[in-house]
Amino acid sequence: MKTDPHPWATDLATLHAQVWVLLVRGVGDRHAAARQPTLATVSPDGGPQARTVVLRAADRVAGTLDIHTDLRSAKVAELSHDPRAALHVWDAGAHLQTRIESVVNILTGDEVAAIWAKLPDLSQQSYGTTPAPGVPIAQSLDYAKQPDFASFAVLRCTVQALDVVHLGPQHRRARYERATGWAGHWLAP
Amino acid sequence: MKTDPHPWATDLATLHAQVWVLLVRGVGDRHAAARQPTLATVSPDGGPQARTVVLRAADRVAGTLDIHTDLRSAKVAELSHDPRAALHVWDAGAHLQTRIESVVNILTGDEVAAIWAKLPDLSQQSYGTTPAPGVPIAQSLDYAKQPDFASFAVLRCTVQALDVVHLGPQHRRARYERATGWAGHWLAP
Repeated sequence: MKTDPHPWATDLATLHAQVWVLLVRGVGDRHAAARQPTLATVSPDGGPQARTVVLRAADRVAGTLDIHTDLRSAKVAELSHDPRAALHVWDAGAHLQTRIESVVNILTGDEVAAIWAKLPDLSQQSYGTTPAPGVPIAQSLDYAKQPDFASFAVLRCTVQALDVVHLGPQHRRARYERATGWAGHWLAP
Repeated sequence: MKTDPHPWATDLATLHAQVWVLLVRGVGDRHAAARQPTLATVSPDGGPQARTVVLRAADRVAGTLDIHTDLRSAKVAELSHDPRAALHVWDAGAHLQTRIESVVNILTGDEVAAIWAKLPDLSQQSYGTTPAPGVPIAQSLDYAKQPDFASFAVLRCTVQALDVVHLGPQHRRARYERATGWAGHWLAP
C-alpha cells in the first residue's frame, strides 16, 4: 500500500494550513506554483479580465496577499471601479487548486515608500514605462523604461474566502471564509 | 551572439500564429501549458471568478476553444447570466502570456452527443456527480460519481480578442481583434 503523499488533504484544518504554506512558499521561491497566480478582475464594462501577476507577500495571520503593479495599468483602473479580485493558483505538484476571493486596497505614495526602497533597481524599472502600459505604439519596442516611484502601486488583497480542490486519487473540495474564522466545510467536487 | 529562441515574437503575424500553435498543442499534449488555462467569469453578483479548466478543442480558423464541464457547475450559471469569459495561459517555456477575451455558448444534449460518445468512461465520470458540484457535504467523500449525459456541457468559447505578452530579453505586447481580421497592433507592455 502506497503512502499518501498529501495527508494534509483529508482534514479541513491541515488543508487550510497547507494552502498558506504554498502561498508563503510562492513569495520566496520563484519556481513555486504560487509565485505566479492569475489575478481576475471585472472591467468597468462588466467583463472578466485575467492576467499573470507575481506574488510579493503573503500574511496568513492578516489573511492578505500583496502584488506590485504600475498604477497606470488596466487592472488598477478595474480595481478602482470594483475592488473585488479573484486570485487563482494551480499547483501541479500538490495536485491543488486554490481559488481566492479578495477585496483589494490600492496602496501608493508614502504607504509604499518602504517597499519601493527595498526593490532592486531592475525591479523598479517595471514601474514607469513610457508610454503607459496598454497604450498603442507603432513598433514593438517604441517604449522606454524609467523607474518612477509615482507609478508604483501595491495591491493588498484581503482574502475573504478560499475554495480549495485537491485532485488526488480521490477528489476533495473545501471552502473557508473569513466571516466564520476560516473553519471551513466540505463541498461536492 | 546567441540565437533568438523565439523569433516569432518580433512580428505581429508570426506572434499570432504562434499563439494558435501553442493552443492547439494544449489540446493534444497534457504537459503543454495551454492544456490547463484559467477561465475567468463574472458571477451574478458582479464579482470575478477564476478556475482551472482543461482545453478540449482549438480551432484557429473559426477562432473557437472548447471546454467540457458539468452543466450544474457554478461557471455554467455564471455564463448563463453573462456569456463573457476570459481565458488565460502563461507558458513559461515560451515566455508567453496569452489573454483571451471570448463569448461562450453553452452546448448540451443533441449538440454534444457525438463529443460525449467519444469520451473515455473515466472522463464521463466527471459529469454527473451526486450531489452536484459545490453542494455542501458533511464529510469530504460524501459524494458519488455516476456518468450522466444530461449533466454534460461543452463551453464553446468564440474568441473576440487576444492580448499577448512576450517576456523575452525585451518585452513585447500585441493585441488582436476578430473585428479587424486579427491584423493586430503593438501596445506598450
